[in-house]
Amino acid sequence: MTIELEILRVWEGRRERAVDSVTEEGVFTICLGDEELVSMLCTPRHIRELSVGFLFSSGIIHSFSEIKKHMINEKSSTVHIDLAYPQRITYTSGCGRGVVLEVEMKPAERIQSPMRILAQKISYLMHEFQNKSSEFQRTGSVHSACFSDGERILIFHEDIGRHNAIDKVIGEALIKGLDMRETILLTTGRISTEIVHKVLRARVPIMCSRSAPTYEAVQLCREKNMTLIGFARGKRMNLYSGEERILQE
Amino acid sequence: MTIELEILRVWEGRRERAVDSVTEEGVFTICLGDEELVSMLCTPRHIRELSVGFLFSSGIIHSFSEIKKHMINEKSSTVHIDLAYPQRITYTSGCGRGVVLEVEMKPAERIQSPMRILAQKISYLMHEFQNKSSEFQRTGSVHSACFSDGERILIFHEDIGRHNAIDKVIGEALIKGLDMRETILLTTGRISTEIVHKVLRARVPIMCSRSAPTYEAVQLCREKNMTLIGFARGKRMNLYSGEERILQE
Repeated sequence: MTIELEILRVWEGRRERAVDSVTEEGVFTICLGDEELVSMLCTPRHIRELSVGFLFSSGIIHSFSEIKKHMINEKSSTVHIDLAYPQRITYTSGCGRGVVLEVEMKPAERIQSPMRILAQKISYLMHEFQNKSSEFQRTGSVHSACFSDGERILIFHEDIGRHNAIDKVIGEALIKGLDMRETILLTTGRISTEIVHKVLRARVPIMCSRSAPTYEAVQLCREKNMTLIGFARGKRMNLYSGEERILQE
Repeated sequence: MTIELEILRVWEGRRERAVDSVTEEGVFTICLGDEELVSMLCTPRHIRELSVGFLFSSGIIHSFSEIKKHMINEKSSTVHIDLAYPQRITYTSGCGRGVVLEVEMKPAERIQSPMRILAQKISYLMHEFQNKSSEFQRTGSVHSACFSDGERILIFHEDIGRHNAIDKVIGEALIKGLDMRETILLTTGRISTEIVHKVLRARVPIMCSRSAPTYEAVQLCREKNMTLIGFARGKRMNLYSGEERILQE
């Protein structure tokens, strides 16, 4: 996943040859039946998790059991998926950044979870989470995401795209049958509405990022009663929404 | 561009109500003639620069003069553009993250620029650049990009998307007639091949980021003789490609 490169390092007016670790990027195409669905710039690892998570978080499947066949072709960088119940997917005439698939999707319901967690536990989990990201520590260029049950980290993934890192953990949760309604999602990435929509689909009650949310993401979390924590660094954090789930000792 | 929100701040076991600044996000759709081309999640400001830059960096136009009509409809969040020479754009059957428009595009030629700059100047410019990003300082959730002539910052933009921030500065350069072949592009964002392709189209000889590049981005810069600087922070930086353009005092 990382590659060593010879570079020139400049600091304080000095120059020296050095070896630097950089991350790999690749393009994988998901084909649904006979049709190309989407091409993704990603870290070309855990493509099974990525593709399953992507189909779920985009509203194309509702459970892992809807996938009848799943085949990865490493040589052509494609994933071939057959669904048990073929979905009608309409493309808007122009699509682009962010996926514009028109899938019939019900608006997400409000989150009703009784889950509660101590603020101190969140800080502890974020600390464990950051330590796990060895790829980031080496290359400084990947995002991470993980699911926790409030005690420990259950599923962890990294990717050059912050959307992909979240799709990968959702994908693995679906494959393993983890009930995401009783988990916390931790992420390094910024929180836009696209990210909130993904996580809402998984019915995750608490999402926590070391970065910032947008205004629209905060409004969406408040409307859907999802707990949103931002700027979780050291012993600090900002509670933007659903603060009753975060307890104090 | 920023909105004030009441939040709950937690630190060192204490809690207090606080006001936090968060950034705004929006969706703008570019229509080319009668057809929707692309919908972009972006910071909904400087849409003229964003749309012109996007058309250029995607290979749809080669100069600003190819735009015959440009009309922004704030109410419907759309930009209507008519081109002087209508382009044949083919969409791949599935497209998604990253734009997959099939435009006839020649592979970019190698950069031949005689431009040279002192490493110290780069550090100074990065410092000025970071100071300019007041939105980031308030909200922590936008990327910035700028063009410099090596002495000062000429054009500066911010956006929640790192691609968009670069498209905005390219768009303004095209509108103002700035010769990008004699500039340095500074950015806060990570450098993937998609970003390098955009900047190559603009024939910019030197690109500098405070973040990391991917392996594929470095290889592309080496092949095209573009100077690529990463991790430019304080008086340090890594030269990944085209180091002969960066001089020492």
